Amino acid sequence: MAVAEITVTPLGTGSPSLSRYVAEVEKIIEESGIPYVLTPMSTCIQGSVDEILTLVKKVHECLFEQGVLRVATTVKIDERRDKELTLEGKIHSVKEKLGHSD
Amino acid sequence: MAVAEITVTPLGTGSPSLSRYVAEVEKIIEESGIPYVLTPMSTCIQGSVDEILTLVKKVHECLFEQGVLRVATTVKIDERRDKELTLEGKIHSVKEKLGHSD
Amino acid sequence: MAVAEITVTPLGTGSPSLSRYVAEVEKIIEESGIPYVLTPMSTCIQGSVDEILTLVKKVHECLFEQGVLRVATTVKIDERRDKELTLEGKIHSVKEKLGHSD
Amino acid sequence: MAVAEITVTPLGTGSPSLSRYVAEVEKIIEESGIPYVLTPMSTCIQGSVDEILTLVKKVHECLFEQGVLRVATTVKIDERRDKELTLEGKIHSVKEKLGHSD
Repeated sequence: MAVAEITVTPLGTGSPSLSRYVAEVEKIIEESGIPYVLTPMSTCIQGSVDEILTLVKKVHECLFEQGVLRVATTVKIDERRDKELTLEGKIHSVKEKLGHSD
Repeated sequence: MAVAEITVTPLGTGSPSLSRYVAEVEKIIEESGIPYVLTPMSTCIQGSVDEILTLVKKVHECLFEQGVLRVATTVKIDERRDKELTLEGKIHSVKEKLGHSD
Repeated sequence: MAVAEITVTPLGTGSPSLSRYVAEVEKIIEESGIPYVLTPMSTCIQGSVDEILTLVKKVHECLFEQGVLRVATTVKIDERRDKELTLEGKIHSVKEKLGHSD
Repeated sequence: MAVAEITVTPLGTGSPSLSRYVAEVEKIIEESGIPYVLTPMSTCIQGSVDEILTLVKKVHECLFEQGVLRVATTVKIDERRDKELTLEGKIHSVKEKLGHSD
């Protein structure tokens, strides 16, 4: 199990408003059934490396289907083999060190 | 006003557990008074480009003060000049397109 | 055809020197036969999205085989559908606008 | 001394061709006198953290002066305190481990 962050950026679309494209990406992530969190700059997901890379391919492709001619897709995968990483667990560990309750 | 995403990674620390370092970074961001959101992979902040870059310098420096010998700090700044970006506004725009309430 | 940038970072390794791990990653990229360029911060490659993601999986996995317990792998894919992107072509286009010969 | 990677992306420009914007960024980096390398996906530079962040501000700003309404600027800073990192030194260390001469 790994945690990953995905950003899909349509380029050359003619308008600085990109949220309708981000919404298409979110629909695909939602439909995948994988746990996810939408953040102000990206989407964080949790799954095996195979599940993550399969989803990366789908979200990258989906913007071309919306008529975009150039797409920049970034994924950062964070995986530990001594302990399982989860979306909630990563935030919990930091808050615990800060003495904050979730 | 811009929105940015900051990640500070200590390298060569000898343990795969990094949350105590992330907690040091969060303390500095909290103390800055700037609006922020902790996500599973980074911290998102909101402010002027000058405020963002000043904070980047502080959080990058703080891990050396914790005894770390090598630090990789990434910041991604997203700025619009036709409309103000905010942490909440960016998420709201996407959820609106999805027909979700916040 | 797309161009991508890959960075593989071993975490918690006990020494700030990471080049021996980067060399393992480079060996796998070299063996893949895909065109690549080693830069001071990453490796840039050129291929189909499937070829890129297959290689991402291999290089991410290879550091665990070297005994690393946590690995952060980032890939940024840049793809255009109106025109083919290549490693050389991207640099050439910028230099041309600058009036520099390659 | 640190090594950093800068990417400046104009958003919503109406054409998928972005090299003329990248060329503006390169002009500013060249004029700064800081050592740099143009790669297929970014520009790598070498300098103090202050020099790097000053340059980040300038290149981010320059695309708004070209009429772009939204700009995404990413910088990744890699700094070691036990040893000085340089653009050439980072590549040399990897090639040495691979048994390649530069």
